[in-house]
Amino acid sequence: PVRVNGFVCKNPMKVNADDFFKAAALDKPRVTNKVGSNVTLINVMQIAGLNTLGISIARIDYAPLGQNPPHTHPRATEILTVLEGTLYVGFVTSNQPAPNRNKFLSKVLNKGDVFVFPVGLIHFQFNPNPHKPAVAIAALSSQNPGAITIANAVFGSDPQISDDVLAKAFQVEKNTIDWLQAQFWENNHN
Amino acid sequence: PVRVNGFVCKNPMKVNADDFFKAAALDKPRVTNKVGSNVTLINVMQIAGLNTLGISIARIDYAPLGQNPPHTHPRATEILTVLEGTLYVGFVTSNQPAPNRNKFLSKVLNKGDVFVFPVGLIHFQFNPNPHKPAVAIAALSSQNPGAITIANAVFGSDPQISDDVLAKAFQVEKNTIDWLQAQFWENNHN
Amino acid sequence: PVRVNGFVCKNPMKVNADDFFKAAALDKPRVTNKVGSNVTLINVMQIAGLNTLGISIARIDYAPLGQNPPHTHPRATEILTVLEGTLYVGFVTSNQPAPNRNKFLSKVLNKGDVFVFPVGLIHFQFNPNPHKPAVAIAALSSQNPGAITIANAVFGSDPQISDDVLAKAFQVEKNTIDWLQAQFWENNHN
Amino acid sequence: PVRVNGFVCKNPMKVNADDFFKAAALDKPRVTNKVGSNVTLINVMQIAGLNTLGISIARIDYAPLGQNPPHTHPRATEILTVLEGTLYVGFVTSNQPAPNRNKFLSKVLNKGDVFVFPVGLIHFQFNPNPHKPAVAIAALSSQNPGAITIANAVFGSDPQISDDVLAKAFQVEKNTIDWLQAQFWENNHN
Amino acid sequence: PVRVNGFVCKNPMKVNADDFFKAAALDKPRVTNKVGSNVTLINVMQIAGLNTLGISIARIDYAPLGQNPPHTHPRATEILTVLEGTLYVGFVTSNQPAPNRNKFLSKVLNKGDVFVFPVGLIHFQFNPNPHKPAVAIAALSSQNPGAITIANAVFGSDPQISDDVLAKAFQVEKNTIDWLQAQFWENNHN
Amino acid sequence: PVRVNGFVCKNPMKVNADDFFKAAALDKPRVTNKVGSNVTLINVMQIAGLNTLGISIARIDYAPLGQNPPHTHPRATEILTVLEGTLYVGFVTSNQPAPNRNKFLSKVLNKGDVFVFPVGLIHFQFNPNPHKPAVAIAALSSQNPGAITIANAVFGSDPQISDDVLAKAFQVEKNTIDWLQAQFWENNHN
Repeated sequence: PVRVNGFVCKNPMKVNADDFFKAAALDKPRVTNKVGSNVTLINVMQIAGLNTLGISIARIDYAPLGQNPPHTHPRATEILTVLEGTLYVGFVTSNQPAPNRNKFLSKVLNKGDVFVFPVGLIHFQFNPNPHKPAVAIAALSSQNPGAITIANAVFGSDPQISDDVLAKAFQVEKNTIDWLQAQFWENNHN
Repeated sequence: PVRVNGFVCKNPMKVNADDFFKAAALDKPRVTNKVGSNVTLINVMQIAGLNTLGISIARIDYAPLGQNPPHTHPRATEILTVLEGTLYVGFVTSNQPAPNRNKFLSKVLNKGDVFVFPVGLIHFQFNPNPHKPAVAIAALSSQNPGAITIANAVFGSDPQISDDVLAKAFQVEKNTIDWLQAQFWENNHN
Repeated sequence: PVRVNGFVCKNPMKVNADDFFKAAALDKPRVTNKVGSNVTLINVMQIAGLNTLGISIARIDYAPLGQNPPHTHPRATEILTVLEGTLYVGFVTSNQPAPNRNKFLSKVLNKGDVFVFPVGLIHFQFNPNPHKPAVAIAALSSQNPGAITIANAVFGSDPQISDDVLAKAFQVEKNTIDWLQAQFWENNHN
Repeated sequence: PVRVNGFVCKNPMKVNADDFFKAAALDKPRVTNKVGSNVTLINVMQIAGLNTLGISIARIDYAPLGQNPPHTHPRATEILTVLEGTLYVGFVTSNQPAPNRNKFLSKVLNKGDVFVFPVGLIHFQFNPNPHKPAVAIAALSSQNPGAITIANAVFGSDPQISDDVLAKAFQVEKNTIDWLQAQFWENNHN
Repeated sequence: PVRVNGFVCKNPMKVNADDFFKAAALDKPRVTNKVGSNVTLINVMQIAGLNTLGISIARIDYAPLGQNPPHTHPRATEILTVLEGTLYVGFVTSNQPAPNRNKFLSKVLNKGDVFVFPVGLIHFQFNPNPHKPAVAIAALSSQNPGAITIANAVFGSDPQISDDVLAKAFQVEKNTIDWLQAQFWENNHN
Repeated sequence: PVRVNGFVCKNPMKVNADDFFKAAALDKPRVTNKVGSNVTLINVMQIAGLNTLGISIARIDYAPLGQNPPHTHPRATEILTVLEGTLYVGFVTSNQPAPNRNKFLSKVLNKGDVFVFPVGLIHFQFNPNPHKPAVAIAALSSQNPGAITIANAVFGSDPQISDDVLAKAFQVEKNTIDWLQAQFWENNHN
């Protein structure tokens, strides 16, 4: 088969609407994970016709007090709108010259509010409501944006990063790192 | 002021969360126009921080039997999901060699379904339900995607395109073109 | 065979000048179609060496009173110069805020004049001379620019777009749409 | 004034067809220079509306036995078609592994033939006819492609490159370099 | 002054070699910080002529047992070679489907070895030698790559990220987060 | 095997650190060629993981009085720093309007100095020291930048460019061209 970008490129004679379609993809609430969220991403793996087109879409479910923990998308900017509930969201800027270094820009979002997370910056969303879930729709500027959950990548990689390195980087004792590395770092992208 | 891409680029010292935020942007149903839709687009004109980031987001309201009429985005692919109701959607491929020329790919979308409209192709959404409105969220792969409503651009331009040209292009009498050009071509992007 | 962009990428050992060459491609007038034009496009399908290089070239023949009807290129800007005769040309801008919405910018071009049609905008060329043909050379900023003839894509797609949708979009009776859909929509790219 | 890419970006309210137009740009033969050619390039300096659109167009006149001498375009691929006469054209590939290193791919072009010069490669066109001029139209994949005539840049720069360096690079005596640097290196882009 | 990308674009008449030059930029060992490294980056802020050209270069000094702690570059891939000493380096892949999720790829580099850190992925370098410093040269695929030191951005932002959010994200007690946020997070890019 | 960009794209299950690594690539001085230099380039042919990532790195060795002769990179800007010795470097601008046409910008670089050679421009480095070698590290903004040594491409191509063309282009007698074409044009990229 012909491939473009590493993905199969269907014979134009056989392309049909199903190649640009995913049924019942984003309508239903999904079970949230240990940190209280679940990201349902529709990217080029779900809809083959997205290949080369530079966009994808996701539904994010948040449990009460749940969060989509600090993470980055290595290949995409994200724009998000709240469908239900309330979200406390933010991102941290990069190492610009002081006093702009690592500024934290945050906002409480209500239904219908829109917020932007620029490409590659660490960001999160948190549902501050102890009783109600929240739901958001997010779009990303790549058909394959990737996601790096910071805690999982740093403390839950396979194999583990040397605890010597991490202890110094995070200014903690090695046994704190060892304890962190022994935890289960659940992925919230299923 | 410093400008990038023609838009003001704020002093990094003064950037704050509001530059990446738009309140109450997409939560409320909006009055639909003559063809029965209303597109609320949040792009770089609404959120200055989107500049250069290559994405925007929209809410589209559809009246019963309303439509977002055939149009193109000159600078973006669109990915859409249905929040409420049902939509009959489709796009037409370009002049590929026969028998693939101008194929019409369509689908009926229900809540939670996702569909993709590739960059530059003519597409539409139609709410086939005579009683209930529909709502969709769409994302576009540009901070300034543009929209060209076909009928408005062809028959409602200012000044008008020569009716000699349009009569021959559309295989109709000149007085049919004149009649069309005399109509009011309402924009559904407000 | 190795492929790049979906096209065969020849073994460098076997590449020769013919991979960057097309003989007698653009010298001869060609028979024009029902709307009075014929576009001879030399793209990556004609010259394999164009792959990834982002450019193509075309000759356009116009019969007396012939036109290259309103169309868009989803992936390219076009720059055109007149070799013979006269052309009335124009394009319509997109839905910018009023009073700039759908402005029609047009010009009469004589031999040697140059005009630009920005990417994705609806444009046309018309030969206003009832006696003499016209010829133009156009270049496009993609090795595979695509072309969407508006009337053909809207009224001549396969299968047809619902006449309910089109009647409302174009503010005409359904039987007018049915009549239009029953016509033969000839392609002028051969 | 607002600028994009360093060029003035006109107020959309004031944009008109003249911003996408250049009159009588490419119709007339022009006087050729010492090497027997004259390139008339219509780029963003000639048509402001080309800014960001990634294309430009040129007419090239060749005297009998004239040439457009070996040169490169640092930011564009070129596609060329012959309008009148005959051209002997070619380009040299880069330092790929032997035996593909610096292969010279050439062709004799007649009226209507099309040839491609990939971005950044050294290429030339030569009119082998001792009696008749030739004319070509070329398009380039940038609104500001640049041109570097090899002999002019190497031997005619201001100030001159050290003759020690050039003598060793070209395996000739320093006085040969000095003689070359004393010549007048006329530009054929006027 | 004319600006491109937000940076001043010098009048071409006044451009000279100094606009592409930085003296004594990368020759001298520099004092390392608390985590034992110092990154000297030459980007568009140091050499104005780099604007739009998509590359920058850095020297990195490592104290014995020093590290360039886990960080990402939001806009660049990095390629690194060791000039002196030994480095233990690695990066963590993103959330690809299991079993490829968050794989840690690492290597011990000696003088002259080359390693690549793909765009946006978390990576680090560590000098495992308790007695000798190390030095590397790294190049980045942007004139303004940015850098996000993970610990600094997560625990040292201004203002601080809510400790509720971070405690849950990192599976630790809030007082651990509070302790971390009370530390001084020194930047190693000076 | 899956290929991207014409290069094999390894199964993600089997990717490991060696795919981003090249051992002992740039540490050792290498024998210089006839013009007194040797470029050791680590690009996508050496490290498969560089594919699509837009960067490569090189070590350049210079003999006393050796040079990396005038050349261009058709697909990359270069940034260079001197590790040992002294280099006289420069580039020539393109055919901008006079008086900026073909300006030669040069500099003497000492250890630790950084210089930039913009994409596609003719540039060289020369070691003016008659006794000591020099060493530089250069990075290029492409995983496959290409290199075109001017003298080799013009006078050493296979087959040879017509001496009629070159004699006129370089304003010398045909027998001078013939003599040049009879020389051995050694490549300094090994």
